[in-house]
Amino acid sequence: MARTSAKKNAFYAQSGGVTAVINASACGVIETARKHKDVIGKVYAGRNGIIGALTEDLIDTSKESARNIAALRHTPSGAFGSCRYKLKSLEENRREYERLIEVFEAHNIGYFFYNGGGDSADTCLKVSQLSKTMGYPIQAIHVPKTVDNDLPITDNCPGFGSVAKYIAVSTREASFDVASMAKTSTKVFVLEVMGRHAGWIAAAGGMAASEDCDLPIVILFPEVPFSQTRFLATVKEKVKRYGYVSVVVSEGVRDRSGKFLADQGLKDAFGHAQLGGVAPVVANLIRDKLGYKYHWAVADYLQRAARHLASKTDVDQAYALGKAAVEMALAGKNAVMPAIIRTSNKPYRWKIGEARLSRVANVEKMMPKSFISRDGFGITPKCREYLEPLIRGEDYPPYRNGMPRYVQLRNLPVPRKLNTDFKL
Amino acid sequence: MARTSAKKNAFYAQSGGVTAVINASACGVIETARKHKDVIGKVYAGRNGIIGALTEDLIDTSKESARNIAALRHTPSGAFGSCRYKLKSLEENRREYERLIEVFEAHNIGYFFYNGGGDSADTCLKVSQLSKTMGYPIQAIHVPKTVDNDLPITDNCPGFGSVAKYIAVSTREASFDVASMAKTSTKVFVLEVMGRHAGWIAAAGGMAASEDCDLPIVILFPEVPFSQTRFLATVKEKVKRYGYVSVVVSEGVRDRSGKFLADQGLKDAFGHAQLGGVAPVVANLIRDKLGYKYHWAVADYLQRAARHLASKTDVDQAYALGKAAVEMALAGKNAVMPAIIRTSNKPYRWKIGEARLSRVANVEKMMPKSFISRDGFGITPKCREYLEPLIRGEDYPPYRNGMPRYVQLRNLPVPRKLNTDFKL
Repeated sequence: MARTSAKKNAFYAQSGGVTAVINASACGVIETARKHKDVIGKVYAGRNGIIGALTEDLIDTSKESARNIAALRHTPSGAFGSCRYKLKSLEENRREYERLIEVFEAHNIGYFFYNGGGDSADTCLKVSQLSKTMGYPIQAIHVPKTVDNDLPITDNCPGFGSVAKYIAVSTREASFDVASMAKTSTKVFVLEVMGRHAGWIAAAGGMAASEDCDLPIVILFPEVPFSQTRFLATVKEKVKRYGYVSVVVSEGVRDRSGKFLADQGLKDAFGHAQLGGVAPVVANLIRDKLGYKYHWAVADYLQRAARHLASKTDVDQAYALGKAAVEMALAGKNAVMPAIIRTSNKPYRWKIGEARLSRVANVEKMMPKSFISRDGFGITPKCREYLEPLIRGEDYPPYRNGMPRYVQLRNLPVPRKLNTDFKL
Repeated sequence: MARTSAKKNAFYAQSGGVTAVINASACGVIETARKHKDVIGKVYAGRNGIIGALTEDLIDTSKESARNIAALRHTPSGAFGSCRYKLKSLEENRREYERLIEVFEAHNIGYFFYNGGGDSADTCLKVSQLSKTMGYPIQAIHVPKTVDNDLPITDNCPGFGSVAKYIAVSTREASFDVASMAKTSTKVFVLEVMGRHAGWIAAAGGMAASEDCDLPIVILFPEVPFSQTRFLATVKEKVKRYGYVSVVVSEGVRDRSGKFLADQGLKDAFGHAQLGGVAPVVANLIRDKLGYKYHWAVADYLQRAARHLASKTDVDQAYALGKAAVEMALAGKNAVMPAIIRTSNKPYRWKIGEARLSRVANVEKMMPKSFISRDGFGITPKCREYLEPLIRGEDYPPYRNGMPRYVQLRNLPVPRKLNTDFKL
């Protein structure tokens, strides 16, 4: 598709669970667009993601100082708000698309940048087809983001490297701790990590140990059906050999029948169902069956928000993908996503490639079997080789009085032009 | 007491729960002792704390390179192993003291450095009295350490500042995350932190918000009996005003009857008691009564092991206290503990003072009432003024391939001289 000749504004939105570096992508989009004001007018951000477009709740990013936009690079979370809202198909909900066109037209929007995971790639693909399906000229570019690392084509997803670094470092630190305590107290430490479908984040726990740092780590992957007998035998063996062990468990671990291990049918004193994590379930199992003292932690949001420990590779790539998305728009592209292409492992080198959205949307990339060790409780050298460059490098935020200086934007609204309501 | 004239060896041991900076104190002790080889022979560390002394399981720190000892400064946990073991009184268990003297005599130990909290101060005091009570000449110096920050006299305890920084930063980061998600998803984030008796660590969650960073934080202190009605009203009010809220809950929160909130009498499908944290209890309460979507995290060991985010003030003080302990020994002192004296708030200035162990042992310093806001859910400006310098400054460990380089010492044993067993 040729670039539209008249100067158009851009729409940018964040989608789904946020990460430590999604704002670095926003920074890449906005800073690059600002360098091309002859082609791209203003960048309007959707307040709370695509909902902002549907409800005509747009944020005028041009009102933010260059300094504040630059600070997005070191600020975790979604600065404009995100949402969990997936557009239905054109057939199922035509009025959503009509509304988008109405809002885009009112605000002269010709570029659509959508920053999210698999679901958002699908939404972005649908928007990219509006020219053809509904006669509204727009270029839609997807900017990848997901801690789950499950998008296809791209070698890895921005957000994942920093979570991986956080889990690897935290597991190493906690392992040192439990090693100190094991003689008379805690022998097993259990850390619950994210990843309902794929074990990419759990795998990062394996990076806690390395050639120059011998630590006993047992990983429970969602890809490997949980065997209580084999798990307990492995824990026992590690404790016998090392005196202690760390267990990294994915929230998505299931038993052989496909039931989540976390779903233990707990009831409180009043008989109400109680939702717990999988870490206490695993810890209780170890106490009951092996009698070891234990501690457990659930990292939850801490892991994906930990900008203080971001991977430099991850930050650089998140920014580069935002920048590339705008460059692709300037080159007249539509229905594409910039992707990370790994060109070399040693030394690690990467470049930006281009993926067609039709090949990205709704495809989940699982952990290759060759990344999980034969016993099912660890990672292979091949997995280490993949993960290592992704957690490499530190990119500390600036601090003031002991605290990281994360920016809170003013997020001033674009004056509404339609003044019509839209029911979500 | 005059310094013993003959050259004696020193014994050093770590006690109780470890911290991100207890090894920095060990570093201060060993490096300072090495500078005074004319007076102090070798530093022998107890393997797994005082148990190492009782079982004649000593580590010869002189076998470690200067580089590895220096690396202790940036390595979390207890490099020689710690233990939870409190000596009984002389009357109750005389054979423990006789055994200590037997081991100390066999290895020519004249200096006893004990690195721990309130219980260890008590043990250290008992050891300091061995000259008088059992005729064995020894100088015992306590090196303070505890994430709980509950030792008296000293303005603060090494280990606390780094936990406080971790909780403050993590709460800020997770609050940014939930703020992004609140429109369509999570509105409440609950973080469980350590501190069974005192709310010092929970208070640090309040530092997530600051003059230049407005965030809604609700703290549940162990000092404030839990009122469900008032808590829910506060959460509701914050969500109404901000759209979201972060709750920082101390593991030690109790209801009005004195029962731990975490103790909900949970049963699994088989009727077995299930031990959970307090975070899921609070989260479930919010879901049931207010209907908000929530996420919860339990920081557990991650908070006290997080050397990657240590406070520079904390590291400096931990080292300085180890150094001062040796200097006090060289000056002929006994039954004392070096303590942090705050001499100025703005600018923050501190020096090392001296506390008599008889005034430290078994005394718990609670949070002053003036540090908790009137509504019981926040911290006062006075508390902020106290906490702020303690979390100030970053002191990053060196990294290699994306991971912090923490040292694992060789921990070579001192050849045994007694070859007699001791039953703990």
